[in-house]
Amino acid sequence: MKKLINEPAGVVTEALAGMGAAHPELRIDLENRIVYRADAPVTGKVGLISGGGSGHEPMHSGFVGLGMLDAACAGEVFTSPVPDQMLEATKSVDSGAGVLHIVKNYTGDVMNFEMAAELAAAETGTEVIQVVTNDDVAVKDSLYTAGRRGVGVTVLVEKLAGAAAEQGRPLKEVADVAQLVNDNGRSMGIALTPCTVPAAGKPTFTLAEDEMEVGVGIHGEPGRATVKLAPASEIAEMLMEPILSDLPYKAGDNVIAFINGMGGTPLLELYLMFGEVARILKGHGIEIARSLTGSYMTSLEMAGCSVTLLKANDDIMTLWDAPVNTPALRWGV
Amino acid sequence: MKKLINEPAGVVTEALAGMGAAHPELRIDLENRIVYRADAPVTGKVGLISGGGSGHEPMHSGFVGLGMLDAACAGEVFTSPVPDQMLEATKSVDSGAGVLHIVKNYTGDVMNFEMAAELAAAETGTEVIQVVTNDDVAVKDSLYTAGRRGVGVTVLVEKLAGAAAEQGRPLKEVADVAQLVNDNGRSMGIALTPCTVPAAGKPTFTLAEDEMEVGVGIHGEPGRATVKLAPASEIAEMLMEPILSDLPYKAGDNVIAFINGMGGTPLLELYLMFGEVARILKGHGIEIARSLTGSYMTSLEMAGCSVTLLKANDDIMTLWDAPVNTPALRWGV
Repeated sequence: MKKLINEPAGVVTEALAGMGAAHPELRIDLENRIVYRADAPVTGKVGLISGGGSGHEPMHSGFVGLGMLDAACAGEVFTSPVPDQMLEATKSVDSGAGVLHIVKNYTGDVMNFEMAAELAAAETGTEVIQVVTNDDVAVKDSLYTAGRRGVGVTVLVEKLAGAAAEQGRPLKEVADVAQLVNDNGRSMGIALTPCTVPAAGKPTFTLAEDEMEVGVGIHGEPGRATVKLAPASEIAEMLMEPILSDLPYKAGDNVIAFINGMGGTPLLELYLMFGEVARILKGHGIEIARSLTGSYMTSLEMAGCSVTLLKANDDIMTLWDAPVNTPALRWGV
Repeated sequence: MKKLINEPAGVVTEALAGMGAAHPELRIDLENRIVYRADAPVTGKVGLISGGGSGHEPMHSGFVGLGMLDAACAGEVFTSPVPDQMLEATKSVDSGAGVLHIVKNYTGDVMNFEMAAELAAAETGTEVIQVVTNDDVAVKDSLYTAGRRGVGVTVLVEKLAGAAAEQGRPLKEVADVAQLVNDNGRSMGIALTPCTVPAAGKPTFTLAEDEMEVGVGIHGEPGRATVKLAPASEIAEMLMEPILSDLPYKAGDNVIAFINGMGGTPLLELYLMFGEVARILKGHGIEIARSLTGSYMTSLEMAGCSVTLLKANDDIMTLWDAPVNTPALRWGV
C-alpha cells in the first residue's frame, strides 16, 4: 500500500485537520468529524447536511459553503458516520428553518441519518426532511443497499438544493428540488483498477490487466459484469445506453452532463470521455445545457469514471448558475 | 496499460475536442491544438500564452480564461509543442499590447517558444517577453533541462501575471510580476508510483512496492534519490527542508502554500499532507496567507505530490484574490 499517510487509523482526522488549515473559511469540529461553513447556522436559511464514508473527497466536505452544504459528517473510509455526528450537525445548522438531510442510498447511511433526525426532533424539535439519492442504474440491489445506489447525482443535489436554500426557499421546497434532481438524474460508472482502504492495506477487489468492472460502485462493489478492456468510445456506449433508456431521456431534452473521475484517472482521459458522451448525446438530439468534468466523487485512487445525466428545466439551470463558494465548486463569488 | 482512450495517437486531439464540448466559453483550434479564451484577443490587454507537453492537465489548457491565460498550446504527451503552434497563438492573442510567454524550463519548450517569439517579431512586429519558470529545488540539472525544472510555481505565475494583465498593466510590468513570482517560489515533489505515456504503453520508470522517488520531475525524471516509503510527516520534512532553506524563507514571511497532486493521489491524502506542511510552516513562524490544494499540475496517473511555496507581498495577494474564470480555477465571477 503506497499512500501519503501516517497511521491508517489517523487518516480521516488528519485529513480534516489539514482541510481546516487550508480553508479558514470553514469550521472543523475534529472531535465529531464535522465540517461546517463558518457562518452556520445562517439565520432564516434551511440547513443542508450530508455525509458518508470518507474516501470520496471532495464529496462531501469539499461541498461545504455558501450555496451548498452547511455541514458534512465524515465517517471512517467507506463507512457511514454515526447518528451522534449527524445529530450534532443537525442541531448546529438549524436556525429554525429546518434541516435537509441529503443521504446516499446505502443501508447504514440511511438508517443512521433517520435515527439522527428522530433524535433531533425529540431533543430540539428540529424539523428534518430526508432525501435519499439512488441514481445508479447499474444494479437493482447491491452489496450495501436495498434498491439502487446513490452516486453522482448527489453532487448535483447538493449544488441545486443548496442554491434553493440560499434563495430563502422553505424546507419543503428545498426538499422538492432535491427530490426532483434525484428523480431526473441517472448515473453509471466503470472501474479500470481497484482501490485500497488504508485500514485494510490491500485492494478491495481484483481485476486482471485486461479487465474492467462495468457498473462498479463507489466502494468497489461489483457492478453488472467484469469484461475485457475496451476503447473509450465503447465504454461510453456501455455507460450511456442504460442511463438514456432508464428515465428515459429523449430528443429535445436539456441535460446537465457530469463526467466524474473515480480518483486515479487523469483529467486528460475525463475530457476525452466527455467528448464521447457529447457525441452520443448529439446522436440522440439531447442538448448539453451545463456540464461538470472532474474528480468530484471519488473512490480513493480507483481508476475509472462515471457519467451522470440530469434532465434540467429552467429552474434547475438558474440554480446551477447561482453563486457557490466551497473548496471544490466555486463561482459567482 | 489501462486508460480511458481510443487510439494512443489520438489522445491529445480527442481530449481537446472533449474539452471544447464541455467548455463552450473556450475556443479550440483543433488543427493547431491551441485552446483560446473565446474573446481573445482582448483589446488593450497583454496576451498571456503558455503551453507544454500534454499529460499535466489541467495545466495549461484548464487555466485559459479571464484572469489567467489567453491561450495554451498542447504538445503530445510529455512533448513540447512546436514553434508553429506558439507562433499562431502569439499572433492570435496580440491586441497590440504585446504577449507574455510563460515557459517551464525544459530545453525543448524554451527553444521552441524562443523561436516562435522571433518569428512573431519578424512577421507581425509583435512584442514578446518570455519568462521561464525554474522553481524545482530537487536537482540542479536534469534529464530535460539545463538548470532547474519549472514545476508548480508555473500555476501561480499564470494566475498572478494573468490578474496583472487583466488590470491593464503593460507588458513589462506583467512580465515583472511573472518573474517576481518565479523568483520567490520554490517547489519539490515526490512520486509513489510511475505513470504510463499512452504511446509508450509501459511505465516511464519503476519503483519497488516499498520505494518512492524524492524530488521526482513531472515527467517521471529521476529526482534526488529513490528511498524507502516513509510516513507523510517524514515525507513533508523531506520536501520542506530543501524548499525552506533555498530562498530562504524566514519567520514572519507570508506565503501562498500550494499542495499539488500528481494525478493518482486522492484529495484525502493531499489534505493530510497540507496539514503536515502547515505544521512545519508554523514551526518556522511562516504564515500561510493563501493556499491551493488539488491536482493542478499532474503527471498523468502518477501517485505523489509536490509542495510549492511562494513568498507573497500585498500586491501578490491582491492579484491572487482577483477574479478568475477558467475550467480549473474559478472565483469572483
